Amino acid sequence: MTAETPKGIVVVGSGAFGTALAAVASASDKVPVTLLTRRESVVDDIKTSGRNDDALPDIDLPQSLQVSIDPSVLEGADIVLFAMPSQAQREAARSLFGFIRPGTDVVICAKGIERSSGRLLTDVVAEELHLHNVAVLSGPGFAADIARGLPTAMAVAAETMDRAAYLAEALSSPTFRLYPSADRIGVQLGGALKNVLAIACGIVEGAGLGDSARAALISRGLAEMSRLIAARGGDAETVRGLSGLGDLVLTATSHQSRNLRYGIAIGREGRARTETGELVEGAFAASVAASVAAELGIEMPITHAVAAIIDGRLDVKSALEQLMTRPIRQE
Amino acid sequence: MTAETPKGIVVVGSGAFGTALAAVASASDKVPVTLLTRRESVVDDIKTSGRNDDALPDIDLPQSLQVSIDPSVLEGADIVLFAMPSQAQREAARSLFGFIRPGTDVVICAKGIERSSGRLLTDVVAEELHLHNVAVLSGPGFAADIARGLPTAMAVAAETMDRAAYLAEALSSPTFRLYPSADRIGVQLGGALKNVLAIACGIVEGAGLGDSARAALISRGLAEMSRLIAARGGDAETVRGLSGLGDLVLTATSHQSRNLRYGIAIGREGRARTETGELVEGAFAASVAASVAAELGIEMPITHAVAAIIDGRLDVKSALEQLMTRPIRQE
Repeated sequence: MTAETPKGIVVVGSGAFGTALAAVASASDKVPVTLLTRRESVVDDIKTSGRNDDALPDIDLPQSLQVSIDPSVLEGADIVLFAMPSQAQREAARSLFGFIRPGTDVVICAKGIERSSGRLLTDVVAEELHLHNVAVLSGPGFAADIARGLPTAMAVAAETMDRAAYLAEALSSPTFRLYPSADRIGVQLGGALKNVLAIACGIVEGAGLGDSARAALISRGLAEMSRLIAARGGDAETVRGLSGLGDLVLTATSHQSRNLRYGIAIGREGRARTETGELVEGAFAASVAASVAAELGIEMPITHAVAAIIDGRLDVKSALEQLMTRPIRQE
Repeated sequence: MTAETPKGIVVVGSGAFGTALAAVASASDKVPVTLLTRRESVVDDIKTSGRNDDALPDIDLPQSLQVSIDPSVLEGADIVLFAMPSQAQREAARSLFGFIRPGTDVVICAKGIERSSGRLLTDVVAEELHLHNVAVLSGPGFAADIARGLPTAMAVAAETMDRAAYLAEALSSPTFRLYPSADRIGVQLGGALKNVLAIACGIVEGAGLGDSARAALISRGLAEMSRLIAARGGDAETVRGLSGLGDLVLTATSHQSRNLRYGIAIGREGRARTETGELVEGAFAASVAASVAAELGIEMPITHAVAAIIDGRLDVKSALEQLMTRPIRQE
């Protein structure tokens, strides 16, 4: 796709997803890859056992993978993956600013929206790093599947399709396929909004409403997501791709998802618990999406129902009655 | 949506799906509903126990539901649901022709294509009945979920949106929502093609390739389906609705699906068995879709791989390598 090849890749963040991305990038031996961590113990573990057992138990990492706690390794990188948690991205960008060279491609590998500002992570990180080349990687990929070399496909969105194609080529491996996109808004909102539907699917499962109801929810929910993404300046098509539909299917049908499990608990009890623990990503996204939809005058009945259930304004039974008795429009 | 109301509904076919549709239609008590069967034992069962235990064990049917073996009941109906198996639809239409009044709305409630001709069932039945008002009901609904009154949403497509809206209103109940569509081609092809992807998902599951691979397959497979539907004169949007995506999610994630189980067996063995048993719907649809795609010059790599595996021309491992090493294009 392009003659350009990267000279070095650094993955920031040694959680499961960062470790998996570093493993797959270094497995193809196209370019030196370093995992940058803040934890000495991770450096020791990888150097002695070849594994990062805290994050990815029992998975052997490629021998060519470097690991370091020294942020100056960033100076040798022209592609940097930001694989820390969503809400830690701004702070990390700020602290690493001095080490990242101008022109470096930074790729956000986290889902969601900054809670304090409601802004997309690509905007947050671009602001902190004074960079334009901030891309985002999203879609249906569990860390363990990626690290084990099971076939996985995700999307990478950059400012231009050319840049996205370059990153897709540089980061793909024989088992890990990245599809390029120029729609950073759609890819990020898809990744955030699917968590709302995953909660809804959990509620349906927890309440014992059956597989047919879940399938209808996914189908109608995707239509809602695409309306919001279009209104926010993204491409409604994006939501039907890997980072929307694909990720939704994975999250809504696999019990590895925290958002799904959170919804199942609500479905079983018939209402959300009133005590406030740490909310899952989707709970936050539901309330943001519901306000944005109301402001823009977009119909998102499922999102509104999920937000109202989480806020304790509605129980599951009443929400379901509301959804099933709305006037039927064209599909 | 319309002031017109039906005077009588007859459901032809006392299998699980026909019985479920009859149950939900008569539960709302809007109009007299009769289940027309060829089996005396079904008439006896329903009259004595209020159940059709052969088709839907342990589910009590509404008391208002009538049951008959006499096709002359069709003469009092203005909506007739054809809920017999796909391949029996032509013969049934032919034998019932004399009993169905001109102007009756006939609704096909079966998925797939006529094997001998490759034609859509709405065309086959319209031809046999000399009728234009042939509609089709499709989407994610398991008979047991529908009959139990669990929330379900499906699509009904007719020649015009007005007719579809009338049928959706007449056949919906508080738990069974029908969404109208004017795209009979898209709704029928969606229902047929999703079976191909369900086999592919089964292969991925049987081969132990992980949830991420399945999610990618569903996402990329849906893109394939929409290309073929558009080329055949349907609306590519339809495939993203209940009768495509929704039904695919249900079929690909629920082990009640025969197509999925067929794929799982192939995935476990690494190849299709050579002895020929009865093929599932999706196996037939794969070979039809692969030839049509080749004729029209449409890229359908997943469909081609499934067809080649079923024909014994390709093993699972080689198919996977082919799919993962194709040049990456824009999503």
